[in-house]
Amino acid sequence: MSFKTGFCDLGFAKIDIDRKNRRGFSEAVYCPGKTKEHLRDICRRLLENKQDLILTKLEKKVYSYLKKSIPRLKYNTKAKFGFLEVTRKKQKSGSVAVVTAGTADIPVAEEAVATLEIMGARAVRLYDVGVAGVHRLMHNLDVLRQARVIIVVAGMEGALASLVSGLVKSPIIAVPTSCGYGASFQGLSALLTMLNSCSPGVVVVNIDNGFGAGYFASLIS
Amino acid sequence: MSFKTGFCDLGFAKIDIDRKNRRGFSEAVYCPGKTKEHLRDICRRLLENKQDLILTKLEKKVYSYLKKSIPRLKYNTKAKFGFLEVTRKKQKSGSVAVVTAGTADIPVAEEAVATLEIMGARAVRLYDVGVAGVHRLMHNLDVLRQARVIIVVAGMEGALASLVSGLVKSPIIAVPTSCGYGASFQGLSALLTMLNSCSPGVVVVNIDNGFGAGYFASLIS
Amino acid sequence: MSFKTGFCDLGFAKIDIDRKNRRGFSEAVYCPGKTKEHLRDICRRLLENKQDLILTKLEKKVYSYLKKSIPRLKYNTKAKFGFLEVTRKKQKSGSVAVVTAGTADIPVAEEAVATLEIMGARAVRLYDVGVAGVHRLMHNLDVLRQARVIIVVAGMEGALASLVSGLVKSPIIAVPTSCGYGASFQGLSALLTMLNSCSPGVVVVNIDNGFGAGYFASLIS
Amino acid sequence: MSFKTGFCDLGFAKIDIDRKNRRGFSEAVYCPGKTKEHLRDICRRLLENKQDLILTKLEKKVYSYLKKSIPRLKYNTKAKFGFLEVTRKKQKSGSVAVVTAGTADIPVAEEAVATLEIMGARAVRLYDVGVAGVHRLMHNLDVLRQARVIIVVAGMEGALASLVSGLVKSPIIAVPTSCGYGASFQGLSALLTMLNSCSPGVVVVNIDNGFGAGYFASLIS
Amino acid sequence: MSFKTGFCDLGFAKIDIDRKNRRGFSEAVYCPGKTKEHLRDICRRLLENKQDLILTKLEKKVYSYLKKSIPRLKYNTKAKFGFLEVTRKKQKSGSVAVVTAGTADIPVAEEAVATLEIMGARAVRLYDVGVAGVHRLMHNLDVLRQARVIIVVAGMEGALASLVSGLVKSPIIAVPTSCGYGASFQGLSALLTMLNSCSPGVVVVNIDNGFGAGYFASLIS
Amino acid sequence: MSFKTGFCDLGFAKIDIDRKNRRGFSEAVYCPGKTKEHLRDICRRLLENKQDLILTKLEKKVYSYLKKSIPRLKYNTKAKFGFLEVTRKKQKSGSVAVVTAGTADIPVAEEAVATLEIMGARAVRLYDVGVAGVHRLMHNLDVLRQARVIIVVAGMEGALASLVSGLVKSPIIAVPTSCGYGASFQGLSALLTMLNSCSPGVVVVNIDNGFGAGYFASLIS
Amino acid sequence: MSFKTGFCDLGFAKIDIDRKNRRGFSEAVYCPGKTKEHLRDICRRLLENKQDLILTKLEKKVYSYLKKSIPRLKYNTKAKFGFLEVTRKKQKSGSVAVVTAGTADIPVAEEAVATLEIMGARAVRLYDVGVAGVHRLMHNLDVLRQARVIIVVAGMEGALASLVSGLVKSPIIAVPTSCGYGASFQGLSALLTMLNSCSPGVVVVNIDNGFGAGYFASLIS
Amino acid sequence: MSFKTGFCDLGFAKIDIDRKNRRGFSEAVYCPGKTKEHLRDICRRLLENKQDLILTKLEKKVYSYLKKSIPRLKYNTKAKFGFLEVTRKKQKSGSVAVVTAGTADIPVAEEAVATLEIMGARAVRLYDVGVAGVHRLMHNLDVLRQARVIIVVAGMEGALASLVSGLVKSPIIAVPTSCGYGASFQGLSALLTMLNSCSPGVVVVNIDNGFGAGYFASLIS
Repeated sequence: MSFKTGFCDLGFAKIDIDRKNRRGFSEAVYCPGKTKEHLRDICRRLLENKQDLILTKLEKKVYSYLKKSIPRLKYNTKAKFGFLEVTRKKQKSGSVAVVTAGTADIPVAEEAVATLEIMGARAVRLYDVGVAGVHRLMHNLDVLRQARVIIVVAGMEGALASLVSGLVKSPIIAVPTSCGYGASFQGLSALLTMLNSCSPGVVVVNIDNGFGAGYFASLIS
Repeated sequence: MSFKTGFCDLGFAKIDIDRKNRRGFSEAVYCPGKTKEHLRDICRRLLENKQDLILTKLEKKVYSYLKKSIPRLKYNTKAKFGFLEVTRKKQKSGSVAVVTAGTADIPVAEEAVATLEIMGARAVRLYDVGVAGVHRLMHNLDVLRQARVIIVVAGMEGALASLVSGLVKSPIIAVPTSCGYGASFQGLSALLTMLNSCSPGVVVVNIDNGFGAGYFASLIS
Repeated sequence: MSFKTGFCDLGFAKIDIDRKNRRGFSEAVYCPGKTKEHLRDICRRLLENKQDLILTKLEKKVYSYLKKSIPRLKYNTKAKFGFLEVTRKKQKSGSVAVVTAGTADIPVAEEAVATLEIMGARAVRLYDVGVAGVHRLMHNLDVLRQARVIIVVAGMEGALASLVSGLVKSPIIAVPTSCGYGASFQGLSALLTMLNSCSPGVVVVNIDNGFGAGYFASLIS
Repeated sequence: MSFKTGFCDLGFAKIDIDRKNRRGFSEAVYCPGKTKEHLRDICRRLLENKQDLILTKLEKKVYSYLKKSIPRLKYNTKAKFGFLEVTRKKQKSGSVAVVTAGTADIPVAEEAVATLEIMGARAVRLYDVGVAGVHRLMHNLDVLRQARVIIVVAGMEGALASLVSGLVKSPIIAVPTSCGYGASFQGLSALLTMLNSCSPGVVVVNIDNGFGAGYFASLIS
Repeated sequence: MSFKTGFCDLGFAKIDIDRKNRRGFSEAVYCPGKTKEHLRDICRRLLENKQDLILTKLEKKVYSYLKKSIPRLKYNTKAKFGFLEVTRKKQKSGSVAVVTAGTADIPVAEEAVATLEIMGARAVRLYDVGVAGVHRLMHNLDVLRQARVIIVVAGMEGALASLVSGLVKSPIIAVPTSCGYGASFQGLSALLTMLNSCSPGVVVVNIDNGFGAGYFASLIS
Repeated sequence: MSFKTGFCDLGFAKIDIDRKNRRGFSEAVYCPGKTKEHLRDICRRLLENKQDLILTKLEKKVYSYLKKSIPRLKYNTKAKFGFLEVTRKKQKSGSVAVVTAGTADIPVAEEAVATLEIMGARAVRLYDVGVAGVHRLMHNLDVLRQARVIIVVAGMEGALASLVSGLVKSPIIAVPTSCGYGASFQGLSALLTMLNSCSPGVVVVNIDNGFGAGYFASLIS
Repeated sequence: MSFKTGFCDLGFAKIDIDRKNRRGFSEAVYCPGKTKEHLRDICRRLLENKQDLILTKLEKKVYSYLKKSIPRLKYNTKAKFGFLEVTRKKQKSGSVAVVTAGTADIPVAEEAVATLEIMGARAVRLYDVGVAGVHRLMHNLDVLRQARVIIVVAGMEGALASLVSGLVKSPIIAVPTSCGYGASFQGLSALLTMLNSCSPGVVVVNIDNGFGAGYFASLIS
Repeated sequence: MSFKTGFCDLGFAKIDIDRKNRRGFSEAVYCPGKTKEHLRDICRRLLENKQDLILTKLEKKVYSYLKKSIPRLKYNTKAKFGFLEVTRKKQKSGSVAVVTAGTADIPVAEEAVATLEIMGARAVRLYDVGVAGVHRLMHNLDVLRQARVIIVVAGMEGALASLVSGLVKSPIIAVPTSCGYGASFQGLSALLTMLNSCSPGVVVVNIDNGFGAGYFASLIS
C-alpha cells in the first residue's frame, strides 16, 4: 500500500485529487454548511486538477455566486445540483430506470438522474407509478425489465421498492424521501419500510440521497 | 384481472383516471412538494376526464394561482382544502359525527368534513368536547348515538377517542393532531394513545389526516 | 343520559355487564397481567350475566386452568384466543377478507378471524400474498373485490395494505405485526408504513391487534 | 446549612440515616441490581438506626432470604414490596384514592397503597374503572370527590388520568404502567398521554412507579 | 352524579362555565392553534360568566388584538401569559418556591409564578441555582425549607430537581424545559432525568409547562 | 404483462414457484414465526417444483426436524442457514469480498457467504479488520481491490464501511449488526452510521441481514 | 467543606464568582434563551470580579449590542464565540490537535480552538481529513502523534474518531456535529457512532459542543 | 507512516499484536458474540506475543473454560472482567476516584477499577454518594479534590456527574448505567443527562462502559 500525498491542502479543506484515480470518479462536494468562498476555492482547485465537479444540495443563490468564477458550471434546478464535466465519459451499455412513487419525489429522483448522467450512465425516467394505482407500474413492466439497475424513489410509506423488486431480475436501489407528514417523520417511515423489504434484491441509501443512489447505480450499470 | 391503460401520462405524473371506476372515487391530490404548474396540469387533466377534484394541504396562494386556470375551483380556508365536484353524488343515508377535543383541532376536523361532503356523506360537527370537561360530551350523547360513524379528532393526549368509543355502538375513526407542545412530539403522543385504545371499535389514521378519516368514513356511512 | 349501575363489582374488577346493551357486544378480556384466579372470576361473572366470552392473548396453560371451571370454553391455539358464544348471532350478509402478507402473520390473522366469527361476521382467508410475488394477490382479485371489508395483516415493511387498497372499493383495516427483525423494531416499521399509506381508505390498529381489526370489521360488515 | 456526617459507611453503601430527620421519612431501598447480601446489610444498618424499611421491586426469593435475618420483615406479594414499620405514624386526616384503569394495573397500584400505609396515609382503592366503560367511574364519583389526593394508575392509552382530573378539585398523580403491547412500547404511550394532559392538575411519575406516587401523595394528604 | 348543561356552546367551542364550581378554578385557555377571533369570543364568554381569564402561550401581537376588546386584560411578557382576575382570591398561607437552574429557564418559571399568583398562592423566586455551582443553592436552603411546595424548572440535564428534593421535606414539582441543544432533544433529556429521579417526592409535568406546575402547586399549597 | 397462476396454494402459504423464472432465483424462506410443519410442507413443495432451498434464521432443532423429511438439506451452523442446491449454478467470474469489523460479526457474514455460494458467486472472507487497528485492513488492500463487490459487516459504530469505500472502486454493501451494547441499541447505531456514509458507493441492508447482502451482491458480481 | 457565599445575586442570575478559584476557570455563559440585557449585566459583573469572559453560541447582533458596553469584548465569527481574557494564562506545554472530518464541521472545531486558546492551551488545526480519503489523515500522522490530546469533530457518520484513536497513544475527545441530513437526525447518528467506538480511548461530548471539548482538553493538556 | 504487518491472522480473527507499541496498551477483548474456542485461541496468541489480557463482559462459565487453558487468568466476578498482567506497569502518580451514585452501579464501577489497576493507575473507590443524600458526597469532598481524574458512574437520572464536576478542578468521565426501570430506557436517560451537563469538564462514554472510562482515565492520570 502506498499513500502518496494525493491531496491539495487549502487549510480549511484537503481536496482529494487522487479520488478519480483511486475510486474511478472525482470527489463530489456536499454544499450545506460550507461558506460560498470555501466552495469557490474547492471548485477551482478541483478544476485545476482536472476533476469533474459535482455539487449536491446547492442553493440557487450560491450557484449564482459560483457561476461568476466558474462560468462553465451548470445547474439542475429541480435537483439543486451543480456540475461540470471535464472529461467526457464513455456511455455505459446498460440503462438505469429511475422510478418515483409520486410527483413530489421528483427532486430527489432528478438528483439521481443528474449524477448518472455526469458519470456516463444512461437514465430512463419512470415517474409517478406509486402503489395507489398499480396499473401505472404494470403498464411499464418492460421499462423496468429492460433496465440493468433500478432506482426507486419514494416517500410516505415507501412501499414501491418491494413491489418493483418482486417483478424483476435487476438489483433495486431504494431511496426514501422526506415527502409526507405526521408519522412519516421526515422520511423515517419510508426508510424503515425499505430496510425491511420482504423481497430480496433491495438495498437502501439515506433519506433524500438521490446522489448516493445515482453514484452506486453508475458503478454497477 | 385486466389493467387497461387507465391513466394519463404527463411525464412528471401519471394521472389515475381509472380511479373513480376502480375505487368509487377520483384520485385526490396531496399538494406539498408539487410545483404549482404541476398541480395546474394535474387538475386540468383530471377535469378533462370528468374526475372530481380534491386538493389536500393546499396553501392559499397556490389556490389563488390555480383559481385563474380553473375558475370553478373552491377552497375551504380552515382546512386548506381545494375541491370541485364534477358529478353530483347521491346523499348517503347515515350521518358521520365529526368530534373534536378542542378548538385547535378544528382545521383537521374541517378537512374531514370537506371530504365527507364532496363524497356525498352527511357530516355533523361536535367541536370542543374534550375530557377536561366531560359533561360537554355527555350532554351530546344523542348526537353521537345517532351517527352511523364517528370521527374523533384530538391532539395532546388524545384521550377522547377511547371515551367516545365506550359510549356508543358505532365505529370510531381516530385522528391524532399535532396540536400540543413538548412531549406531544408533534402528534406522536396522541397517535400512540389512539393506537393503544383499551376500547375496541377504534381505528387510527395518520397525524393530522382529516382527509383520510373523512374518506374512510364516507366508505362505511 | 343515564348511567344505571350496569357493572358487577368484584373489588379487583368492575365487570361491565351493560356492555352488550350499550355497545352491541360483550366486554372482551385482555389476559396478560391478570392472575388466573382473576380471569376465572371475571369469566364466571360474565357468564352469569349472559355475556359472550372473548379472551385475547390467552396462554394455553391458563386456558387449561379456566377450562376446569368453564368446561364449554373453547380455544383457538394459533390465535391464543379463548371464547364461548352464549347467544347465537345472526350471520351478517357481507364477508370480510382476512389477508396476510406471509405465513408468519397467521396467528394475528387468526385472532381477527376468531373475533369475526364469534361476532357473527363471515371471514374469508387469503394468506401469504405479500408483495414479493404480487401475482399471488392479483390472481385473487375477485376474492378481494367480493369482500365488503378487507383486513390486511402484515409485518416487516407492511406494504401490502396500500397495494390492496389501490385495487378495490372496500375499506381496508391494516394490522401491523411484530414479524421481522432488526429495523422492523417489533412492528414499528409496518405500523409507520400503514399510517403513511398514500392510498386513501386505509385505517390502522395496534401492532398484532387482530382482535381490534376483527371487532371493527364486524361493526361495518 | 450544616452537613454533619449523617450516614453509615459500609463501603459498598453509604446509608442515609439522616433521611428521616431531613426529609420526614426513612430512605427506601430500590432492590434490583443489589446483591442479597448487600440488601441484608443495608436493612440491618437502617434498623439499628431506627429507620423504617421500605424495599421496592423486591423479588420473593430475595425476600425469603432477608426474612431469615430480619424476621419482622413483611411482604406484599402483589406489589413486590418489603416493609417494616419501626415507628408508628399518626394516621393522616385526608384519604388518598388509588384508582386503576384495569385489573392488570393492580400490582403498581398496590405498591402505591403499601407505600401510603407505611407512611401513615389512608388509601381507598377504586380498581378497574377505565374509560371503556365510564359508568363504572361515574358511579364512584363520591369516592373520588371525598379524596384529598387521587392516584390514577393506567397502562395502554392512559386516558383515565385526564378524565378523573376533569371531574374533581383534588390533585391527581398519574402513574403510567407497562401494561399493554405493540405500540404501548412498555408504558411509553401511557407516559406521554399523561404528560400531555389537557386537564390541569395532573402530575406524572415514572412508568410503574407506584412507590413514587404513594410517597408524593403521602406528603400532600 | 348529575351533569347539568354547564357550558356555553359557541359552535367552534363549548366553554366550560361549570369549571370553577367543579374544579375550584376557571378554565384556562391554551392559545396556539386558535384564531384570534376565536380567542376573543371565548374570553368574552368566560367573562360574562364571571370566570377568571388565563391565556397561556399567548403571543404578544394576539394579546394586543385581545386588549382592544378586553381592556382589563393583563400580560406577562416573559411568560407570554394573559390574565384577568375577576374574583379576588384569598391569599393561601403556604408559599411556593419557584427555582430555576439557569437564566434561560426564567420564561417557564414566570409562567408558573403568574399562575400561582392569579390562583391566590404566594410565589418566592429563586433563580439560577443550577448544579454547576451548588453553593448558590446551599446558601438558600432556608428559602427552600420554608416553602410548602417547590417547583424546580430546569433544561439541559435537569439534575436540579433530584438535588433539591434530597434536601427538603416538601413535595417537588419538576418542570423540564426545552433549553439546551444537541442531545437535549428539545427538553427530552431533562424530562427523562426528572422522571427517573432517585429521590422520592418528585413529580413531573410536560416540557415547558410552567402553567401546569403552578396550577398543581396552587392546589397543594 | 401477464400473471399466469405461478404459485402453489397450500392454504397457509402460496409458494411462488414462478420466482426463479421471474427473478432469476428461487424463493428464500424466512423461518421465524413459521411452525415446523409449515416449513416442511413449504420445502417439499419448492423441491417438487425444482426450486433451490434457502432457509434463513433457521434454528438448529428445526433443521433437525426438517432433515428427517428432506435428507439432502444442509445446514451452516454459524449462519443458521439451511440450503439445498437443486440446479448447479455456473460460477460467476467476479469475486465478492466479505469483510467483518470483528469476530462477533462472523455469523452475519457467514449468512452472506452461504447465500453467495448457493447463488453461484465466489466469496472471499476477510474477517476482523475493524478500524481499531487499521493496519489489518491496509495489509489486505489487494484483496479488497480485486473484488468486484465488497460486503462490509460491522456492529457497534459500524465505521468500517465508509473507510473501505474510500479505498476502492467497487460498490460496497454495508450490513449493520446487532453486536454491541448500551447505545448501540441493537444495531441502530451501526445502521445510522452506514446510512450517513460520507463516502459515496455505499448502500445498506437491514440489521443482521447477511442474506440480503449476499443476494444483492450475487446479482451484481 | 465550606460554602462561603461566593456568588453575586442579580435576581435573575446568581453569578458564580467563586468558579475560577474552585474549578480553575471562570464561569462560561451559554447565550441562547437569555435576553441581551441579562447577558450584558452578567458580563459586567463577571468583569468586576476579574473573571474571564466566555460567551458561547452568541449571535453576531447580540455581540454588537454587548460590544457597546464592553468595548474590549472580542468575537470569533465562525465559532459564534465571544471572549475577553482578563488574566493572561501561562501557555501549557502540550498541544491539542483539533481535527475535522469535513469543512462543514469547522464552526464547531473553531469553538474548541477558541476555548483552548483562552484557557492557555495550544491548538493545532487539522481540518478535512475524513475517512472518504484516508490518505489525508495518514499523511498527517505525525501531527496526531505529537499532540498530547486530540479533539475529533465530525458529523454524518462520525467514523473519524475511532479511526484516529486506533493510530495514536493520546486520548481522543469526540465531538459529533449536526452536519448531515436525513438519517443523521441532527447529529444523533454521529453521536451514537462515537459512543459505540470499538477503539478504547475515546470519550464524547454533546452534539456541536466544541466548547465542552476544548474545555476538557485544556484540563488534560 | 509505515504499517508493517503487526497482526496475527487466525482467519476468524486478526490479532493486533502491534497494539501495545502503537497505543501504549494491549488489545482488550470484548467477549459477547465470540465462541469460547475463539476466545481461547485469541488469548493464547496474545500471550505468545507478550500482550496483557483484558476480557470484558466475560461470563463466569466462559471464564471457567478459559481458565483450563490459561491457568494464570484471573477474574473479577462483580465486573465480569478477566485479566492477566504480563508486564508489570509502573504505578502512575495521580489517583483516579471512582464514584457511584448507588449500590447497583458497582459492577460497572468495578470494571473501571479493574481496568485502571491493570493499566497501572491507582483507583480510589467512593460508592453510593448519589444526589438523594448529597451530604454523603460533601463529606468526601477531599477525596474528590485529591483525585487527578474522577469517574462518575450513575444510572437512573445520572445527575451526579454534573454535581461532582461543579465542585472540583479535575476532569470528569461520566459513565451512564442501565440501572433503573421504565423511562430510564436501559440507560438512555442517564446518557442524555450526562451529555447535556451544564457544567463543563464532563465527557461521556457508552452505557455500562466501565472499561472505556477506566482506559481513558488511565491515559490522563
